[in-house]
Order: sequence, then structure tokens, then C-alpha cells
Amino acid sequence: MTPIRICMVGAGRVGRQHSRSIFNHIPGAVCVALVDPNDAVRKATVEEFGYEANFRSLDEALEAVNFEAVVITTPTFTHRDLAALAARSGKHVFLEKPMALGLAECDQIIAAAEQAGVLLQIGFMRRFDPEFVAAAARIEAGEIGRPMVIKSLTHGPGLPPAWASDLKTSNGMLAEVNSHDWDCVRWLMGSNIDRVYVEVANFKGAELGVTTEHFFDNAVVSLRFESGALGSISGVCPCGYGYDARVEVVGEKGIMQIGELAGQAVVVCTDRDQGLVTPIYRTWPERFAWGYIREIDHFVRSIRETKAPSVTGADGRWAVAAVLAANTSFLEERPVRLAEILHRPAARGG
Amino acid sequence: MTPIRICMVGAGRVGRQHSRSIFNHIPGAVCVALVDPNDAVRKATVEEFGYEANFRSLDEALEAVNFEAVVITTPTFTHRDLAALAARSGKHVFLEKPMALGLAECDQIIAAAEQAGVLLQIGFMRRFDPEFVAAAARIEAGEIGRPMVIKSLTHGPGLPPAWASDLKTSNGMLAEVNSHDWDCVRWLMGSNIDRVYVEVANFKGAELGVTTEHFFDNAVVSLRFESGALGSISGVCPCGYGYDARVEVVGEKGIMQIGELAGQAVVVCTDRDQGLVTPIYRTWPERFAWGYIREIDHFVRSIRETKAPSVTGADGRWAVAAVLAANTSFLEERPVRLAEILHRPAARGG
Amino acid sequence: MTPIRICMVGAGRVGRQHSRSIFNHIPGAVCVALVDPNDAVRKATVEEFGYEANFRSLDEALEAVNFEAVVITTPTFTHRDLAALAARSGKHVFLEKPMALGLAECDQIIAAAEQAGVLLQIGFMRRFDPEFVAAAARIEAGEIGRPMVIKSLTHGPGLPPAWASDLKTSNGMLAEVNSHDWDCVRWLMGSNIDRVYVEVANFKGAELGVTTEHFFDNAVVSLRFESGALGSISGVCPCGYGYDARVEVVGEKGIMQIGELAGQAVVVCTDRDQGLVTPIYRTWPERFAWGYIREIDHFVRSIRETKAPSVTGADGRWAVAAVLAANTSFLEERPVRLAEILHRPAARGG
Amino acid sequence: MTPIRICMVGAGRVGRQHSRSIFNHIPGAVCVALVDPNDAVRKATVEEFGYEANFRSLDEALEAVNFEAVVITTPTFTHRDLAALAARSGKHVFLEKPMALGLAECDQIIAAAEQAGVLLQIGFMRRFDPEFVAAAARIEAGEIGRPMVIKSLTHGPGLPPAWASDLKTSNGMLAEVNSHDWDCVRWLMGSNIDRVYVEVANFKGAELGVTTEHFFDNAVVSLRFESGALGSISGVCPCGYGYDARVEVVGEKGIMQIGELAGQAVVVCTDRDQGLVTPIYRTWPERFAWGYIREIDHFVRSIRETKAPSVTGADGRWAVAAVLAANTSFLEERPVRLAEILHRPAARGG
Repeated sequence: MTPIRICMVGAGRVGRQHSRSIFNHIPGAVCVALVDPNDAVRKATVEEFGYEANFRSLDEALEAVNFEAVVITTPTFTHRDLAALAARSGKHVFLEKPMALGLAECDQIIAAAEQAGVLLQIGFMRRFDPEFVAAAARIEAGEIGRPMVIKSLTHGPGLPPAWASDLKTSNGMLAEVNSHDWDCVRWLMGSNIDRVYVEVANFKGAELGVTTEHFFDNAVVSLRFESGALGSISGVCPCGYGYDARVEVVGEKGIMQIGELAGQAVVVCTDRDQGLVTPIYRTWPERFAWGYIREIDHFVRSIRETKAPSVTGADGRWAVAAVLAANTSFLEERPVRLAEILHRPAARGG
Repeated sequence: MTPIRICMVGAGRVGRQHSRSIFNHIPGAVCVALVDPNDAVRKATVEEFGYEANFRSLDEALEAVNFEAVVITTPTFTHRDLAALAARSGKHVFLEKPMALGLAECDQIIAAAEQAGVLLQIGFMRRFDPEFVAAAARIEAGEIGRPMVIKSLTHGPGLPPAWASDLKTSNGMLAEVNSHDWDCVRWLMGSNIDRVYVEVANFKGAELGVTTEHFFDNAVVSLRFESGALGSISGVCPCGYGYDARVEVVGEKGIMQIGELAGQAVVVCTDRDQGLVTPIYRTWPERFAWGYIREIDHFVRSIRETKAPSVTGADGRWAVAAVLAANTSFLEERPVRLAEILHRPAARGG
Repeated sequence: MTPIRICMVGAGRVGRQHSRSIFNHIPGAVCVALVDPNDAVRKATVEEFGYEANFRSLDEALEAVNFEAVVITTPTFTHRDLAALAARSGKHVFLEKPMALGLAECDQIIAAAEQAGVLLQIGFMRRFDPEFVAAAARIEAGEIGRPMVIKSLTHGPGLPPAWASDLKTSNGMLAEVNSHDWDCVRWLMGSNIDRVYVEVANFKGAELGVTTEHFFDNAVVSLRFESGALGSISGVCPCGYGYDARVEVVGEKGIMQIGELAGQAVVVCTDRDQGLVTPIYRTWPERFAWGYIREIDHFVRSIRETKAPSVTGADGRWAVAAVLAANTSFLEERPVRLAEILHRPAARGG
Repeated sequence: MTPIRICMVGAGRVGRQHSRSIFNHIPGAVCVALVDPNDAVRKATVEEFGYEANFRSLDEALEAVNFEAVVITTPTFTHRDLAALAARSGKHVFLEKPMALGLAECDQIIAAAEQAGVLLQIGFMRRFDPEFVAAAARIEAGEIGRPMVIKSLTHGPGLPPAWASDLKTSNGMLAEVNSHDWDCVRWLMGSNIDRVYVEVANFKGAELGVTTEHFFDNAVVSLRFESGALGSISGVCPCGYGYDARVEVVGEKGIMQIGELAGQAVVVCTDRDQGLVTPIYRTWPERFAWGYIREIDHFVRSIRETKAPSVTGADGRWAVAAVLAANTSFLEERPVRLAEILHRPAARGG
């Protein structure tokens, strides 16, 4: 069985994470090239994994190396162009979240993949985390009854890069940090979001020297679903204390908790005035190690079997729409229906 | 040391709970009379605890028996009149939550106690729960830094009585079930609430035969505090699965979780396809056994030492104001500032 | 209802703990006198609780004050004489563990109580801890099937007093620290112990300046029950890290865990390199607060209703027999059957 | 990088588990042949994984296929001959636990590998489990001080095959189920075992139709280490309720718990009379998924880098010696020193 050849686009944290999965744990795939315009970052990642070929641009890689698929891990504002280029070149596309900046960009990516007949998978790795997978199946099977309320949180330890919190170059924290929450609540509730209301707060910006307009490091989102169910999402970044991703769902028959603060089951007490100490997940690669492996494994198997991945461009587009509604909400201090975003001209133009 | 003599007003679930605390665990107090207009309920409670005197009304009790204090556990709409009567009669008042239906009623109760020179304590027992007490002290001491986000939830197992979910006779679930959340978030965050936004949903009303207008069994509240911090409160009642009261606070330095789903530490596994089974708190008396004992103990000691209780009428009034803002929010589908409630004519008139 | 009048014998840690329960949480009893030969210790405890009468000896108290019962909390080597004196004086006896130094002493105490027609209860408070009580009932009900293996541990934070680890004045750590384990395993397994084997180790004695012969701070006990079931007990004292008392039982149908390391449910994380911090039980009064209250409450109710307490002298005697077997085992480096202890002349003579 | 070619010897549960790891998660290795004398079992495993070559004996495989290493997963009584054959044929040997039936067999395997200059690794996968690895490093770093007491347990869900509980063909449960405990306690304590005492019990044998002499399904082992530390090991098999492997270590400075009963963090409550339900590890492949992957990955990297694996034949031999002492203990009802086993003629001859 010949491994699927992959060109990794982006040599930063996420590019390294996917490289780690593929080089160490996915016999069905092989990374044949690395693309990154930043020479130092690219060189470091090449050396860490032993990449045999590397390039400053996807164009160069496409010309020089033979591969079947790309894994795109670059900043969001580059997604549309890179994904469309890869698709047009006949490469299957694994695209990190957030899918793109706006719905028009999402539509262009989806169209490019469809026209080229290549697969498109969005990097919602929680859909492949064993705990989330089991939870979704149990909700689907009716174990807790019709879902009534969902709460999802993502708190990340460190300050994201400047572009990620600037609403001029990104959709900000609700997109860069909370993308997975938007996707998960829709997936787990089996319903699209109908209305959002968002409160944000900036606690650490000043001390961290962040002067970006509209910067916030805390957000609390209220959700109403088309099903009539309710929900909330919280985002805190940087939170400092670890990587925290948990979900709680209350259904007509009961409650389900997915994930927990505690990481590794090695518990120590050496000071009775302090108490028990349990490791926490320090980073997202620790928390979602299996999710990252399995989503790429799923992508590779989908290519091999020529079937659509289970997480599609349409899923990525829904998350983008929710973020756009959420940003409108906190900027205008009012609840915003997704219908408003989905049907406004901007949704078509850009 | 002569015990403080108490007249228990209300022989229902809460009246029985306070009776249980006083008869079994508070040597410093003695219940000398029970008041309830419902003969069957009163008789049952008299027999359960061995009350030596019982009456259909507080007036009768005041005439017949000598006591220093009342514990009022009747429906909210009776609070103003009973508390004012007790105060005017020179009795110290322990008054269950919600304090009253509106701010004017709260003001009348506070004024009555002040004029009579009697103590007034509101039944926010979470302020006396050992876990909440320890948590509050640790937040106050700066252990997690300035609080940025708080989440508080109260999910109750069973359907409340009809009057409690009817906005004509009560402020509904957000008052009857979530009173403690409103008080706790303000206490733990060290800040008043500035703005609320509420989504509600009715999932089980139809099957339970509840036809009350505006009935809901699920609520998700967004909070903004005067400090700039954010928060959320959720209410689910009836939730069926147990009594669930938990709080999570994220501060600039870290996260704190107060309370947990698991109750008694007796864990059993007899079926590997099912897994570990851990008891849950079934009811609020189980969850807050110590809180109930300690709040009455505090009341009794405050009387003995003639000093103001730590939970006052002002605290009860803030919780009522927040509920009024919350109800306005879901009825008018918009965020509502507490200032709007505190300054509107209704706040003065009724 | 007149409270039962109690004379507290012993003003040290355990005497203060029982005083705390009675003064604060047991309306059905009242402490009318405190006895302790140590003037400083007695004076401190008198002041802490407001004892109205206090004496250097039980004899003096018997002469001066009227009471119905004693709670004896003095060192083990005083138990026989004090318990017998109280019984002969017609006082009901609550006697702390270990019951006595030898089986003959136990027999003398039991006989004294029987002849005087007074009640005798041994201070095995775990039998009144809500978790242990629930667990015992569930085992009894067959939830985990016939019990096959039990593991019980007691690790205490600090070094016991010198007399308690000296085999000349006490039966040592296996008696003073692990008494509760011996009683609990017998109770929970529904079977007497048949054979024990003990390994001991001395890790901290030298650094703590303990030069007592046979001193050990770690013990691991193997158990065989008459039912054919197995078990182990571990004792570590001083362990430093907290007060740790847990039991695990494996039955034919499954496993049960009783108790846990974690104490109060207030969990904090402020450092992702350290992890979550959960309070631990620091001391036995924290861990068994309810057990201490309920065992005295049970004693008081037994007196009021003139019926035998559920924990009797026979139970205390079994624990003493097991300790004697255990000490023989580690001294002679061999498994020892309880039959050997129960039937040897020493068991009758001393 | 050419993958290391492996011949899998044994197509049963353990052979399938290692096949799963290698085929799905270890790009550095490839399974080129499967050996098993049982046609049906072999055929099923061939089909499950797509093995390209398969044989009834290792001899046939050696003749027909080119490979660098074997992974031996057959019953213990076949280990010596298969491992020696592979070594003599110049193949690196990964050998499942228990290493062999006696010390002489162990010595023969070690000698064969040494003479052939091939690597020999024993299948103690807990040494590669992330939790055990982290725990060992933290103990080694002195976090809990000098280890004083260790408790290790392995409870397995189902009845082992007949040969495994027959002392004529195996060393029984203490070898087949508890091998990992023997290895782990020695590894984590940093000390060899000095003395063991064992109690065993047979609870379910009759109902399961097991009539083998000396059959037992429960064992409790007392340990004394050369360092002076103490310990215990418990084995229950079949326990029914899941796969349970946990360790607790008390050191001079504190306590450490490794592993937990709870598996996946998906917690559900749908019945307040039952309580919270948390998944448990159902099987050893679930519990030690990463351990199985990492031990083979370590073996493959050791081959590639021509360096000795971290778990050696000497480690396997120590575990066998401990089991022999333990079996002597329960058969002769006395404590047995390891020195007795290591120096007796049988240790050399067979």
C-alpha cells in the first residue's frame, strides 16, 4: 500500500503538529514537501522532521514535487488563495480552521474543490477526538434525550499572534480560538445556530501591550439553536493556566460532560496545606493528540477510498457565519440572528 | 446559655429543612412554634419534629407564644407582609429567598426591620457552604487574580409549584430556582451586575401539562459586571437528573471550580460496559446540608451578639433587581442594564 | 426533652473533638464536666468550650456532678480502669479505640458494663460516616456480590505521642492508627479475620529522634478472612501529606471504592506546569466530622431509648485481638492465625 | 527510511494488539509475516490486517521471508524455544511477558541473544505508558522522597486460557496476570524485592468449571524490598468489572497515584437514584494503547540505532524470580525470600 504523498503548507505550530502526526503515527501518509515563506521557521521544521524537500511557496512545490494532497496550516487570510490553488492543481485539500474570513471566500473554496473534483476537509479535530466521538454517538442514540442546553469552552494559554486578534486581518478570538466550539455545538446539538449574543472584555491587553482596536481576551456567547435549544460558548485567551476545552450538554433525560480539566492520571500530594496536584493539559497538542492523528488518518483514508470526508466545507462555512454574527453582536451590543448574516449582500460579495 | 426561641413560618419543604437543622444540629436555638395555613402540611411537620405549638397564622403565634425570631419559608408573594409583621412585632427575621417580588417590597421589608431594630437575614445558604466560603476567601485573597469570567448554574430535579413559574404570582424560574446564582456571582466577583441578556426555552412544559404563559424550563443568562467582568448563569428545572449547583471562575491568574456533580465518595463498577457509578446530589438538602445548618447558626449567633448578619436585605434586593432585569430581557429580547430597573418608577412604587 | 448529661474524660485532641460535636451540633446532649489530670490541657479545653465544671480525676467528677454518661478519650492503657469505674458508678460508657491493651482487659470492661446494666459503645466513628454507612448497606444488599478482597488504609499526618508507639505501653501503630481499619474490614466483609501477616518498616524514626524498640512508621498487613476472602491494611504514620482513610472492596460482581484523597470540591489551577490543585483532608476531624457527630448522637439516642448501641464491646475486642495477632506476626516474621491469640492463656489472663 | 521488517509470532489477542499498533501507528516498522500453528486464528488475523505472508511455524517463516526482528506473543511455555531460535537466526527479539517458566529458561534466552548479538526486549508495556513514564521520572527526581510503600494491582475482566492457570504449564495468575506488577514495583521503587508473602482465594472457579489444582482468582501479595520499603500487589482475574491497573506509592514526602479506574472523560447522569456514570477501561488494549505503540516504537528505534532496549532480559528474569517465590509462598503458607529462589539449584537447572 503506497502512502498518500502530502505537501505540508505552513511550518508553524499547527504545521509541526500535523507533521508530528504523519511522520510518527500515520503509516498511510508521507510528507514529501514543506512550504513556508519564513526561512527560519521552515528550516527549523525541516530539521525537526527530516523533510526531504521544502519551498517558499506552494507554487514552487507544485512544480517540483509530486504529491496528492495538501495540508494547509497558514494564517486564515491566506486560506482562500492557497486552497483554491491546490484544488485547481488537482490536490486534495485539508484546510485548517477557521476556513476563511468570509462566506464568499468559503464559497469560493468549496466551488474550487467541487470543480476540480478533489476532496476538501476542514481541520475540526474535535470531531475525531475519541471522547467527542463517543459523546456525539451517545447523544445521537438518545441517551440524554433531546438536547436542551449546551455549554462549550475553549481557553488557551498564550496570546495569539497579532494578526489573529486584529479584526482587520482576522475575525478575532471568536474565530481563531473558538472555531472548534462553533462547530462542536452545531454538531453535538444536531441543529444550526439561530441567534447569538456576545459580551466581551479586555483584561490583560494593556499589560501585554496589545493596542489593537476591539481587542478582547474574554468572551461569553449566548446561543439559541433552530431546534429551540440554548447554549453558551466561552473564550478566554490568554488564560495562562493551561489548555482547557470542555463541553456540557443537558438533555431532556440528563446531563453529559465531555472532557475534563485534569490531564494525565498521575496525582500527587506532598503538602497537606496545598492538597492534591493533578496535571492539566498544558497545550492543545497534548489534549487532542488522538484527534490530530485521526483527522489526518480520516483524510488519507477518504482519499484512498475516494469518498467525501465527514467534515466538509459546509461545516467550515457554518462556523464562519456564526463568528460573523457573533462579532456583529458585540460590536452593536445586540442579539444577532444568523439569518441576517447568511442573507446579507456581504455574504455573497466578500 | 438559653437557646434562641424561633417561630417557623411555613411547614413545607424549606420549613422542614430548617426544622431539621434546628432540631438536630443547632443547640443554640429551639423551635417553639410552627405556622402554616395548610392543616395537613402543618400537621405532618408538627409530627415529624415534635413541635409543641402550631398555628394557622403568624398573628396567632405572636399572640400565643413567646419567641425572639422568625424563620420565614412561605411563597415569595407572602414575604413582604409576613416579614414586616414579624419585624413590627419586634422579632428578628430570617427570610428565605427570593426576598420579595419587587424592589419596593424589598425596601419595605428593609425599612420595617430598621425601624423595629431587629435583624434581617436573607436565606442565601451558599454563603455558608464550606466550599463556597473557602472559595470566596481564596478569590478575595487574590489566588486566581482579578476575576474575569464567572459561570454559575442551578439545575433542580423537579417541577416547582404552579405559583412559582407564573409571572403573575412570582418572578418565575430565574427567581425561584436561580436566586442563589444571582447572589453568588455578585458575591464571588465582588462587583454588581451591570447588564444581563437572557435566552429561555420550554422543552418539557407541554408534556408536564404546564400551560402558564411565558413558562420556560431552561434559561441561559449572559452577564456583564460593573467591574468589566463577564459571566453566565444557567437554569434548568425540572432537569430530572439531580440537584446540580456549580460555579466556575476564571481570573487573571487561573481558574477555580466550586462544587462538583459527584456527591458521596462511594464509587462502584459492576458492569464494564456501563462503567463507574458515583452518587450525585439528589436534592438541595443533601448538597447544602452544612450551608443550611450554618446560616441558621449564624442568624442565632448574630441575635445573641446583637450584630448584623453577613447576608442582608440589601443583598436580597440586588438579587431581585437582577431577576427583574433578566425577565425584561427575555420578554423584550434585548440586553437590559440593571440601571434601567433600579431607576425606573416601578422600582419605587411596587 | 432534657439533654443527656455527659462527663468528658480526657481534654486532649479527641476530647476536644467530641466536645466540639456535642457543644455545637448535638442538642440532645450536654457536657457537664471535663476530666483531665493535666492542668494546662484541661484549662485550655475548659476555656475553648466553656465547661462549667472540671476535675483532675473521674472520681472527683463522680462525686461532684450529676451525669448519665462518660465519653472516655484518654490513652489506651487507662481505658480498663476508667471504663470499669464509670460502669460501676452506673454511667453509660462511650469508650475510644483501641478498646484496651489486651483481651482480658476487654473482657473486664464488657463484664463491668453488663453487671452494671449500662451501655458500652466503642468509638469506631467510621461506622457512622455517611459514606461508610452507605457502602456497608450496599455491600450487604449484594450490589458487588460476595466480597472477595478488601483493602483499607489509614495514613496519619503527624507522629503519635511516645506512649503510642512503644510496645510496652501500647500495642503500637497497628492499634493506635489502624484500629479503624481492623474494625471496618471485619464489618464491611461480614466476616471475622482468620489469619494475618505483617511487614513493617522504619523510615523516619531516626530523623525524628524516635529510639523506641520496634518502632515502625509503615506497615502492610495481609488478611485472610474466615469467609475465605482476602485483604490488606496499610498504615503510614507520620505520612505528612494529610489524613488519608480509604477502602476498596472487590466482590464477585464488581468493585467499590469508599472515600477519596480529595477533600473539599474547590479546585484551582494557576500554573499549567503544576496543574490542578484540590484540597485534601488535612486531619481526621475534617474527614470524619459527620462520623464524630453521629456516633455520639447514636450513643445519646441509645441511652434515651435504653437499647444497645450498634458498635459494642465485642467489636472493640475483635480489633484488639487482630492487633495482637498482627504484632506477633511482624515480631516473629510469620503468618499468625487469630485462633492462636483468642485461645492462648494470655487472652484470658492479661 | 526503510521500515524495520517484523515477523509476528502468535496471532491471538496479543499478536493482534501488536499488529494493530504496527499497521496503524508505527511508520518505522512493517509486519511482513505472521506465524501461528492454529489455522483459524492465523487466517482471521491475516485477514484483519492484510498480512502478505503467513506460516504455521517460525521455521517456515525464517526460510521463506526476509525480516530483521520477531515479536513473540505465544504462550509462555513456548518462549524459550522460539526466542532462542529467532536469536540464533540473527533476528532481534521482542518477547512478551512472562519471559519464561523458570530462571534457567530466562538465562538460556539471554545467552542466545548475547551470543547472536541481537537485541532482546521484554513486553513490559507499562514502562512506556505516558502516565507510568511520567510517574517514574517524578519519583526518580525525588518529588515524593524515598519510596516507603507501593501498592500495585492488576484486575482483568475475563478468565485466562486453561494453560495459564495450571501450575503444570504456567506459573499461574501471578505470572500471567500480575507480571506487569512485579516489574513495575521493582522499577518504580528502584529496588529489588527481598521477600514475599502471598494469600490466594478461589471464589469463582467452581461456577466457571475450573477444576485445575491450585486454581485461584484472587491473590494478595505482601512485599519487602531490599531498600527496606514495603508493598503489596493484588490480582483478581476474572474480575468482570473491567481492566484495572493502578499503582499508589507513598514516599517520605508524599503520595502518588498512577492511573485511575475512570477511562474516557465522558460523564453522564440520567438517573438521580443511580448517579454519575463514567466509562471504565474495559480491556488492556484500551488502557495501554499508547504503551503498546511506544514499546514497539522503542524496539524499532533501538534496532535502527543498534542500542540496547531499556527493558531487558534481566528485567524479565527478575519478574519470573518473584513469581516463583510468590508461588512457593502460597503453596507453603510462609514468607519466602527471593534469595532462596535465586540460589536454589532449580534456578540453574530449569
